[in-house]
Amino acid sequence: MTRFVDVALRWSDMDAYAHVNNVQFLRLLEDARVAAFDEWFGQDRTMLETGVLVARHEIEYLAPLTFRHAPVRICLWPTKISGASFDLAYEVRDPDGIGEQLYARAETSLVAYDFPSASPRRLSATERERLRELAGDPVPFRWRRR
Amino acid sequence: MTRFVDVALRWSDMDAYAHVNNVQFLRLLEDARVAAFDEWFGQDRTMLETGVLVARHEIEYLAPLTFRHAPVRICLWPTKISGASFDLAYEVRDPDGIGEQLYARAETSLVAYDFPSASPRRLSATERERLRELAGDPVPFRWRRR
Amino acid sequence: MTRFVDVALRWSDMDAYAHVNNVQFLRLLEDARVAAFDEWFGQDRTMLETGVLVARHEIEYLAPLTFRHAPVRICLWPTKISGASFDLAYEVRDPDGIGEQLYARAETSLVAYDFPSASPRRLSATERERLRELAGDPVPFRWRRR
Amino acid sequence: MTRFVDVALRWSDMDAYAHVNNVQFLRLLEDARVAAFDEWFGQDRTMLETGVLVARHEIEYLAPLTFRHAPVRICLWPTKISGASFDLAYEVRDPDGIGEQLYARAETSLVAYDFPSASPRRLSATERERLRELAGDPVPFRWRRR
Repeated sequence: MTRFVDVALRWSDMDAYAHVNNVQFLRLLEDARVAAFDEWFGQDRTMLETGVLVARHEIEYLAPLTFRHAPVRICLWPTKISGASFDLAYEVRDPDGIGEQLYARAETSLVAYDFPSASPRRLSATERERLRELAGDPVPFRWRRR
Repeated sequence: MTRFVDVALRWSDMDAYAHVNNVQFLRLLEDARVAAFDEWFGQDRTMLETGVLVARHEIEYLAPLTFRHAPVRICLWPTKISGASFDLAYEVRDPDGIGEQLYARAETSLVAYDFPSASPRRLSATERERLRELAGDPVPFRWRRR
Repeated sequence: MTRFVDVALRWSDMDAYAHVNNVQFLRLLEDARVAAFDEWFGQDRTMLETGVLVARHEIEYLAPLTFRHAPVRICLWPTKISGASFDLAYEVRDPDGIGEQLYARAETSLVAYDFPSASPRRLSATERERLRELAGDPVPFRWRRR
Repeated sequence: MTRFVDVALRWSDMDAYAHVNNVQFLRLLEDARVAAFDEWFGQDRTMLETGVLVARHEIEYLAPLTFRHAPVRICLWPTKISGASFDLAYEVRDPDGIGEQLYARAETSLVAYDFPSASPRRLSATERERLRELAGDPVPFRWRRR
């Protein structure tokens, strides 16, 4: 079960300072999340059929990222799994053989949601089991504790 | 001294769920920040000439936002002003006469940075004074305390 | 009946060259089109309810556009109205009092489409009438004739 | 010498109709162009060092594109090479083994430009030679001839 997704940068991810824009980091996390959920919950399909809502993001930027043809490696794993929500932790890194840099740490809080009935729902037993298999440590944010 | 900026939505802010995408909220905050800094620091220009770096974002989504021709009102004010950094608090709201909804609360940590020399710097006395005049309460995030 | 829409720029419309990116011009046209159609066809609603598809774009860039707080004025008018499609001509300009620059000329071909039945449709008599009231000259593209 | 680039889609390329948005097609072409130029002109570097400006785009949409994890294959080749400009032709297709669909045809006119001196320039002999080796047929646009 995969715990990272390599996401290709786009030239347009750069802003007027010629760095990958801070908001675009969240865009890269979105793509990693979509790809990972497809793999993690693909057989069950519950997650993708009825869905989850993004309730919260937190992200800390650790190093500037310049556009390059090599993708970024986004490591991601669940934390804080409860009855109707969970957090997803991320690290934005260089892929193997490209470098050792950690560019950002982030966390997304996701709420299980039933889109057909437009109402919150509980995570299914299958979903919770899968999330627990994949679960890892909470994100060691630094700024929060200032 | 303005403490809110009305930002026009774009049709493309919607994602495949036909709501304003969660990442686009950060994009709206970026525009409010650029407009507010221009007004707050326009005379001094220190902030815009030598700059600030985004070190961190945190955002909580409170209600779905649908595309409409009316802008969103982004209230923003400094918090946690220190020697070389400060936080910016935001609320994404309806403008007067349009509604009463609060869509999101957010916070950006900004680090004073000297782009010409590519190194962190201290906030100038003028910058700190201006930030203190505008300062307000910290963002009452709820998810963090779960 | 309005023939122009002022569209606010976003700081993120700039690319790594610190100019409004060529692709973002199409994004600005999209917003002008959405706002204009809402006004032009708002009473009838046929256009917006059953829809139109973008079949083609053509755009010529005439001058670089730098980010500023003033919006761009997008003039737009129908050309080549036929039974099931029409073209929309655009000019991207400075608004009155800001400048006299013409930044781009463009044209979008739109096909009337019935989204509920997922099939092409004919323009209604009301739609054609409205388009004819607003119709203007074709776009004087230069590159095509090289 | 490569004549196609596979570009990964992003979930956010979809608009509120849940199709890859028409403007995002131009974004995909941008990435293919950046990757191809890097390969075509990488040894010489003239093209990338002093640059080219986008003077014009034309694009025809032939079939709707839905988000999927498989990339799109963007075939691209120069046409109409002159002393100071050339056109780039594109086809947006499925990669081998994924399908046979042609989604769009497009063309970008590019002007050789010397960024350091901010003035148009002539294509170098090396650039022209390389472009001629890669050159192909003009794009068979259909809408233009209506």
